[in-house]
Amino acid sequence: MTSISELGEFGLIKRLSKDISIYNKSTVKGIGDDAAVLSYQNKETVITTDILIEGIHFDLSYVPLKHLGYKAVIVNLSDVFAMNASPKQITVSIAISNRFTLESIEEIYKGIKLACDTYKVDLIGGDTSSSVTGMVICITAVGEADKNKITYRSGAKENDLICVSGDLGGAYAGLKLLQREQDVFRSNPEIQPELEGYDYILGKQLKPEARVDIIKLFDELKIKPTSMIDISDGLSSELLHISEESNCGCRIYDQKIPIAEETHAFANELQIVPITFALNGGEDYELLFTISQADYNKFRSNPDVTIIGHITEQTKGNYLVIGEGSEIEIQAQGWNAVKNN
Amino acid sequence: MTSISELGEFGLIKRLSKDISIYNKSTVKGIGDDAAVLSYQNKETVITTDILIEGIHFDLSYVPLKHLGYKAVIVNLSDVFAMNASPKQITVSIAISNRFTLESIEEIYKGIKLACDTYKVDLIGGDTSSSVTGMVICITAVGEADKNKITYRSGAKENDLICVSGDLGGAYAGLKLLQREQDVFRSNPEIQPELEGYDYILGKQLKPEARVDIIKLFDELKIKPTSMIDISDGLSSELLHISEESNCGCRIYDQKIPIAEETHAFANELQIVPITFALNGGEDYELLFTISQADYNKFRSNPDVTIIGHITEQTKGNYLVIGEGSEIEIQAQGWNAVKNN
Repeated sequence: MTSISELGEFGLIKRLSKDISIYNKSTVKGIGDDAAVLSYQNKETVITTDILIEGIHFDLSYVPLKHLGYKAVIVNLSDVFAMNASPKQITVSIAISNRFTLESIEEIYKGIKLACDTYKVDLIGGDTSSSVTGMVICITAVGEADKNKITYRSGAKENDLICVSGDLGGAYAGLKLLQREQDVFRSNPEIQPELEGYDYILGKQLKPEARVDIIKLFDELKIKPTSMIDISDGLSSELLHISEESNCGCRIYDQKIPIAEETHAFANELQIVPITFALNGGEDYELLFTISQADYNKFRSNPDVTIIGHITEQTKGNYLVIGEGSEIEIQAQGWNAVKNN
Repeated sequence: MTSISELGEFGLIKRLSKDISIYNKSTVKGIGDDAAVLSYQNKETVITTDILIEGIHFDLSYVPLKHLGYKAVIVNLSDVFAMNASPKQITVSIAISNRFTLESIEEIYKGIKLACDTYKVDLIGGDTSSSVTGMVICITAVGEADKNKITYRSGAKENDLICVSGDLGGAYAGLKLLQREQDVFRSNPEIQPELEGYDYILGKQLKPEARVDIIKLFDELKIKPTSMIDISDGLSSELLHISEESNCGCRIYDQKIPIAEETHAFANELQIVPITFALNGGEDYELLFTISQADYNKFRSNPDVTIIGHITEQTKGNYLVIGEGSEIEIQAQGWNAVKNN
């Protein structure tokens, strides 16, 4: 094992950046100068950033380092897709305490590079630092889009259909499962974690993907959503963002919210109503978007997209319709990093 | 005093972003969506990022929060200027433990916004998180430049003149002074810190500026430096970056290195050779650049720029010429965050 201090900052940067592939013409200069240089001709640029803190966003006792690197990238790409844009570059800043070896940092970068390869995104720079205690990963993603395709949270109109990609609550179920097994392990280290049969929710938590396929679908079907946001803090919280920014209300139907079988099963095991995971769990990285009714037929039979409700006028508020018609006001109880400690 | 958890993440973001001014046309959409949207027409984009960690890069026992916010921005703008580019936007990610109140976060943002106002840069987004222990600030800066003006580390040619802006070693002297007075205070809290007469070095440490004036000067004088880098890790380290990237060597002259009177005086007080602060101290945020000899007359009598040496062929190595001619090989012993713990 190699200690980071042996290498020094510049040695570390050289080591980590030695096998980086550049996929995009817009990357003029990547790692190796005071700043990276990009060239976006006739496109608009989108930029987003996320900070992940050990002990708040991830727990290294059950998250493999490679998965952590992968997910840290995905979180940001998801924000770019939520603008109906294509991610092209990322910068990665990492702070690590000296308990980590070079090999463990390389594991994180393996995950980062795998995400870059999968999504054809260029790693163009960043910063490395020591940390007095926990690990910090801060990623900024840059993407491009045609001006007329960029989709904000603010464009939803009355009667628009509310859609989500994939299914919801799985990532939170996966987190709960990992936490449960960790508790069991801590109380009795002899007991091996029981993770079998839960591949799907574990995958949603540990190795989420960002919905590039949905962005491609919009392009193929010639649809521009009227509004869009990615679901990182739970459906409730994201719906309220759309309503607030679009000055509208919404009605969604509990029976329509897509929840995977495993998520259902695990929620039942914990004696929690499964829809709670979808509404208030976080980290699904699915897309929530609205389309005009005219586009209904294009999505009607698409297995990757579910219509869960519709937009109303603002005075009608934001409600979840339960079963035969009772309504519950939607409140943001989402996964909230600031409230978590 | 208001606790952060009362507000929640979204309340905090709203509060912090309520009085933000937008100065640049290239900012299409700032805070408030999944990503910010920028429009850079016919320009290249530069992007740089820095992560600042409590206990590594700053010590809250002697750095006022507003100064910390200001400096965190400056560090990044300096990297943009070092590309001969103009900074236009920043994103700010902050992680804070719950020992901080809303008021203290607002102090940091006052500094961030003051830097934005001073340099006409738009705060377009970011992320806020809690932290289990220390504070983390990660800033990404985006800037623009004409394609033919962007200046890399790699363009220095034999016989080019090596120049630095301002003076060197002051920020490190300021840090040493603060640390000394802290040690005194800790051993006897009755004794007040003696900081009088050291305004200049304290200012260089606590409220550095980025050299926008030098970039403007290049423009006015119609000079394009052949290479450039900002001095954040000490002159030695930065010179070696230029030599390595430009495949050249260098000779600099100890008598030529600009050091302020206060820096000199404080180094003497500590019985340290003042040039050590310039060579190996960090955080000066001055610019180190090379120009062709043909541009010599344009800079000859400029008080903000000092010619400290020249570029040689690579086989001649990198040397500091002392006094009448003895030569010392330049080695990077710069301020190195990774080695610091």
